[in-house]
Amino acid sequence: LGLAVLPAFAADPLPSWNDGESKSAIVDFVTAVSTEGGPDFVAPADRIATFDNDGTLWAEQPMYVQLAFVLDRIKVLAPEHPDWQGTEPFKSALAGDMAGVAASGEAGLLQLLAATHSGMTSVEFTQIVSDWVAKAKHPETGKLYTAMIYQPMLELIRYLKANDFDVFIVSGGGIEFMRPWTEQVYGIPPQNVVGSTIETTFEMRDGGPVLLRGEHVSFIDDGPGKPVGIQTHIGKHPIAAFGNSDGDLQMLQWVTSGPGKRFGGIVHHDDEKREYAYDRKSHFGKLDKALDLAPSQGWQVFSIKQDWKSVHPQ
Amino acid sequence: LGLAVLPAFAADPLPSWNDGESKSAIVDFVTAVSTEGGPDFVAPADRIATFDNDGTLWAEQPMYVQLAFVLDRIKVLAPEHPDWQGTEPFKSALAGDMAGVAASGEAGLLQLLAATHSGMTSVEFTQIVSDWVAKAKHPETGKLYTAMIYQPMLELIRYLKANDFDVFIVSGGGIEFMRPWTEQVYGIPPQNVVGSTIETTFEMRDGGPVLLRGEHVSFIDDGPGKPVGIQTHIGKHPIAAFGNSDGDLQMLQWVTSGPGKRFGGIVHHDDEKREYAYDRKSHFGKLDKALDLAPSQGWQVFSIKQDWKSVHPQ
Ligand SMILES: [Ca+2]
Ligand SMILES: [Ca+2]
Repeated sequence: LGLAVLPAFAADPLPSWNDGESKSAIVDFVTAVSTEGGPDFVAPADRIATFDNDGTLWAEQPMYVQLAFVLDRIKVLAPEHPDWQGTEPFKSALAGDMAGVAASGEAGLLQLLAATHSGMTSVEFTQIVSDWVAKAKHPETGKLYTAMIYQPMLELIRYLKANDFDVFIVSGGGIEFMRPWTEQVYGIPPQNVVGSTIETTFEMRDGGPVLLRGEHVSFIDDGPGKPVGIQTHIGKHPIAAFGNSDGDLQMLQWVTSGPGKRFGGIVHHDDEKREYAYDRKSHFGKLDKALDLAPSQGWQVFSIKQDWKSVHPQ
Repeated sequence: LGLAVLPAFAADPLPSWNDGESKSAIVDFVTAVSTEGGPDFVAPADRIATFDNDGTLWAEQPMYVQLAFVLDRIKVLAPEHPDWQGTEPFKSALAGDMAGVAASGEAGLLQLLAATHSGMTSVEFTQIVSDWVAKAKHPETGKLYTAMIYQPMLELIRYLKANDFDVFIVSGGGIEFMRPWTEQVYGIPPQNVVGSTIETTFEMRDGGPVLLRGEHVSFIDDGPGKPVGIQTHIGKHPIAAFGNSDGDLQMLQWVTSGPGKRFGGIVHHDDEKREYAYDRKSHFGKLDKALDLAPSQGWQVFSIKQDWKSVHPQ
């Protein structure tokens, strides 16, 4: 009876992955770098892995989750801003007119970002995000966004951590938009989350010190920004990186360069039945150059259709 | 015989601290937050402690170690820059004329910084710092700078880590100047080092990708910047902070605010025999406002003269 609760010997650490090249490549890599005395052994302190978030750990269609947050937030704040009814990009955002929002360009997006992400303290923003993420639902599945995470990738994170990897998120998304929930959802604590930041200033108030969120975007953790974010926050050269779009190209190049065994993985959204199928022409998560480079660079492309037994947690 | 190798029960975790108010305050705090079921218990994941570096973990007199590095480096690079012989601030730096360097103001210091910290890759800079720190000697003691660390603070770091604290350095110094040696010297790995940064860019070269260090200082992790650096890198509210100057004032305010038991500690350099005595009028590590505020804020002032049995490792 007692034996039944013992973990099975060599139990499958990746049960939601189908047998195949992707799964084998992951297991071979992890085994190689963690086999003491082996030719590819890497000391635990140097086993650093980085994961993109949108489209790699959770769904990014029909739009980035953080953009859904922005649009919801604009609606909540609209009563305090009657002028928004007649002013772009707020007018289009309130009407749910995405083409109108897009027409306002980057300047318009920055206005929406400032209106929803700035002017409050860090503690207040964390509360706003926590409240939203606890209730907001995906428009097509009706599930919580935190249920729209990818079960196979969750298993991959756990497998790496079980083999003494220090696992980081390195995302183009806002760092403080992710931190309130990444520990509970992925098991990745705030200090292991790297993302885009806005200028924040320290202020002494009557009630005590606060960190005030400003409007200026101080760092964009995307594309060539990802290796820079890795260096600033981690200060080590990771040996494994996982992404899903050209925004991860430089991270993949950086992480898979250098001596020793390294792993680059790309989640390819090719399953229109169970999830979404998009790559070279997508507005969100465009995957083009990195897909072309994958074979020559030895990056493993994970096909959702073929490699994943299930997509989201059941 | 076998029993002799067992650790003694309640062995002193801080042997280089004299019995007294400072040592008691530390032990009481650590015991309180780590006693499960107690009124002041803090979950291990929230036990975050931050340490200033210069003057808190190692000596900062007669000048900041990083400034000694700059001056040494200017001498090494001088043969490639014959014009420096007649141009300030390089002329004064080469002559060891600190008043002359100071006369060039902040603009001059930034020129020296740019000449010594920029224009190379992150890997090259790490090598330069590693080579220097392995050999450079303190001008007065003749010891390696890494031997000029404070043994009591090293014991404090170990004591906190043994009680499941996650320990970070939060220093005004350059983040990449510290990372090459903090793990070996303090047991604090690169990802737990927060410091000032210069703009770094990703570049694809023939030999592979590099991170190129630019001249623009992108973040100053000092004074009001320290709570911001804490938020950006850690994303949690620490419960203990240790510093030695007014550059730590806002970190102490931030960390010791909020609910629950918190600890603020200030190293007071008051031992002219065994180390240095300086505070309100010092060029390096000026301690004035924070010293005035310590009693009302409940910050513990550590007197090197009275509280430390020994100063540096023997
Ligand atoms: Ca992505
Ligand atoms: Ca200091």
